[in-house]
Amino acid sequence: MGLNLTKRHDLEDFREQAHQMVDWMADYLEGGVRDHPVLSRVKPGAVSGALPKSMPESPEELERVWQDFQDIILPGVTHWNHPGFMAYFSITASGPGVLGEMLSAALNVNGMLWRTCPAATELELVVLDWLRRGLNLPQEFFGFLCDTASISSLLALAAAREAAGLDVRERGLAGRDDLPPLRVYASDQAHSSIAKACLTLGFGLQGFRAIPHDKDYRMDVCALRAAINEDRKAGCRPLAVVATVGTTSTTSVDPVAEISALCADEGLWLHVDAAYAGSAALCPEYHWCLEGCENADSFVFNPHKWLFVPIDASALYTRHPDTFKRAFSLVPEYLTTPMAGQVVDLMDYGVQLGRRFRGLKVWWVLRTFGLSGLQAHLRRHIALAQEFATWVDDVEWLERTAPAPFSVVCFRALPSGETDSEAIDSFNMKLMEQVNASGEIFLSHTRLDSGISLRVAIGNLGTEEQDLDLCKKLIMEGMACLSNL
Amino acid sequence: MGLNLTKRHDLEDFREQAHQMVDWMADYLEGGVRDHPVLSRVKPGAVSGALPKSMPESPEELERVWQDFQDIILPGVTHWNHPGFMAYFSITASGPGVLGEMLSAALNVNGMLWRTCPAATELELVVLDWLRRGLNLPQEFFGFLCDTASISSLLALAAAREAAGLDVRERGLAGRDDLPPLRVYASDQAHSSIAKACLTLGFGLQGFRAIPHDKDYRMDVCALRAAINEDRKAGCRPLAVVATVGTTSTTSVDPVAEISALCADEGLWLHVDAAYAGSAALCPEYHWCLEGCENADSFVFNPHKWLFVPIDASALYTRHPDTFKRAFSLVPEYLTTPMAGQVVDLMDYGVQLGRRFRGLKVWWVLRTFGLSGLQAHLRRHIALAQEFATWVDDVEWLERTAPAPFSVVCFRALPSGETDSEAIDSFNMKLMEQVNASGEIFLSHTRLDSGISLRVAIGNLGTEEQDLDLCKKLIMEGMACLSNL
Repeated sequence: MGLNLTKRHDLEDFREQAHQMVDWMADYLEGGVRDHPVLSRVKPGAVSGALPKSMPESPEELERVWQDFQDIILPGVTHWNHPGFMAYFSITASGPGVLGEMLSAALNVNGMLWRTCPAATELELVVLDWLRRGLNLPQEFFGFLCDTASISSLLALAAAREAAGLDVRERGLAGRDDLPPLRVYASDQAHSSIAKACLTLGFGLQGFRAIPHDKDYRMDVCALRAAINEDRKAGCRPLAVVATVGTTSTTSVDPVAEISALCADEGLWLHVDAAYAGSAALCPEYHWCLEGCENADSFVFNPHKWLFVPIDASALYTRHPDTFKRAFSLVPEYLTTPMAGQVVDLMDYGVQLGRRFRGLKVWWVLRTFGLSGLQAHLRRHIALAQEFATWVDDVEWLERTAPAPFSVVCFRALPSGETDSEAIDSFNMKLMEQVNASGEIFLSHTRLDSGISLRVAIGNLGTEEQDLDLCKKLIMEGMACLSNL
Repeated sequence: MGLNLTKRHDLEDFREQAHQMVDWMADYLEGGVRDHPVLSRVKPGAVSGALPKSMPESPEELERVWQDFQDIILPGVTHWNHPGFMAYFSITASGPGVLGEMLSAALNVNGMLWRTCPAATELELVVLDWLRRGLNLPQEFFGFLCDTASISSLLALAAAREAAGLDVRERGLAGRDDLPPLRVYASDQAHSSIAKACLTLGFGLQGFRAIPHDKDYRMDVCALRAAINEDRKAGCRPLAVVATVGTTSTTSVDPVAEISALCADEGLWLHVDAAYAGSAALCPEYHWCLEGCENADSFVFNPHKWLFVPIDASALYTRHPDTFKRAFSLVPEYLTTPMAGQVVDLMDYGVQLGRRFRGLKVWWVLRTFGLSGLQAHLRRHIALAQEFATWVDDVEWLERTAPAPFSVVCFRALPSGETDSEAIDSFNMKLMEQVNASGEIFLSHTRLDSGISLRVAIGNLGTEEQDLDLCKKLIMEGMACLSNL
């Protein structure tokens, strides 16, 4: 391929290659993914070792890159779209979501200002309002998209810091004799991104106080109250509480209503991390899981987790958009526009200036699934998980280790006669690695009060009963194999 | 479209719709974009007002969404891919970059851990090393991708904070009598994201000290030295200096070598923001612009800016990856893997846990352009800009307001007989709005020492001499029209 600068050489074979790729993508999503091991089997360094040390001097044909993708990259992919992917929070791209991303890549707009792509800002605000209504959240919630819940929660806690009236925007936190140590509270089951936000914002790990959980892995509100009192007595300044709806380990739901009442009494910012489980509240029978969230100061859930939108799309809501602006807005002359003040410029609400056109893929998903379609898939996932939980309950040598309110089941094997907790943990890790080595199912683990637990997480559009049956079969085979060792 | 849960309904018409979309995308990129006004003409609220208040209850056909995209969304798009887009930093998606994004959306992996997609981590590290070599940066630079330079610089300054040995990770910044106010230095021409990072990290706006520029908009190193001395005397703790290679207003290049020597003397972290101009250093004749960057502690440039990679992809390099890990790594049990310690888990180096497969699109671009292809386009853009600068110099009533070392030209009109600086500013804003109203060219502005300047930024693969000719013609027509008023 010669370089012809009078014609866009990068488009010479684009159309042909894109059509070829679309057929591959459709085959892959329609089930071709099952031809690959769900968990990549490559050894560390295998992919990088197969690639040259430098970029090529001359242009290469699209076809060659595509071939190398098949030969070198694909074996190194762990297939999150595989129906047997039941690790972490299982997520899937949906066809409509992929279409939205394709278009977003081709348009390549930066929606930093309203003016730099009015449709990007307006569609984002509209689909976030659609989701707000779907989740039955209050009308005064203003919502926008971030890339990840890590960033959404970071912005929320920065807003909490700003709301405290400590003049942090101007004066910062260091070297001030008028500032006490600051405290953020979350349960010890909260996601690591909350502690990471505290680190980033300058509260330090000591500024993050982990509150114990009750027997169902929900935040212990008495312990929260005691911690706040203790910190106040010790001269610390409580800033915010982060409640979780759907914790990472067990998908437990903190008692948000109680926590919100406490926050109101104490004058604390309430941020709710519903990154995974928020989606469930699109079904009326799951409205309970967001009870109390109507009182939150900020709330995040991730359409890229359990709502079939390709990564990344995290929905952040707040009743105090102006506080986010006070925390973050900086408008140099080169970013002023004639319509400042009449429009929403989304760069004002967060850290990142650059903003992809993420609203498109969310819009494509919401319209083509419809509320009823989303509900049907969520209910199907929950039903599959509940059926699996029942199976666990019925198998003598398996133990359920936590309630399963949504589509994640925590359990462990109890090898016959074994009472040593370390030996049981190690057995379960081996069992998991054995299942994962099958290439057909991929599970992950966590640590609960009883020790290591395995997790089965359902969230993939392609996952069917047969996949759960295979998972059960592999667990039974693994058990048999390890018990005979 | 009925909802059939035994078959993935979201894929029913995916293939057909995706092929149709690919043809539209190819037509659009090949020149169809010229059929649209570059700057959207919609009024605020026009897009959102045309959309329903709630998501649909039932699934809608893909075809209907596609039609609404054409009818409602497209008129609200400001076309960054339009060859007449010369505002901000002009960027373009390239065909190969779009292909990479398509595949990334279909795979939908989260490369948070090596194991969750070995190819995502390894390809990212490989292409970052290809770019490092291309830019002639030191071998010990470890590079990874962030979404935006806003995040890259935030991470870099968090690492600088960690490197200062103040035990910020554990203890935070607030309520400590052993911590002085912290200071970060950058020129008053530095991007607003640097001040925003200082805000986020708890240094406050007072913790960001803007250093004056010289006549060519480069940081005044004497003033920097004086500011550091003054702050030390006042009991503040200098942490880091941010040097810019290619400032947003004028693309000026700070004297990084001198600054790096000062940082070495003073024990300060040096972060270099080369978000826009870093790409130029792929051409040997532009290696000068990164002189001194080999001494940087961290360095960022954005392949999504002037390297034809779709937004978002920001390349962050550091010689101290362990410091980033100390600043950010938190590994809960559910994110441990059997190969911890033997592999790079990229979640450890930043705020965000979720990580898209961004390496794919960078790889596709680097291979299909090749180094020589990238150089040819960069040189062509620079030549177009230099030719425009010469034209400005030759037109009596136009004034160049800053040197143009790369592909951005700053200038202003001087209406005959007008000496009042506010009147000249206002005239230039009117001139710009008149050009922008054409729908054929989109310019932006900034404020320089002389007042308001207009900017012509070249970075689009499709921009040709005829587009610059049109730009000149519109400026001349605007001048004639406004002078007759």
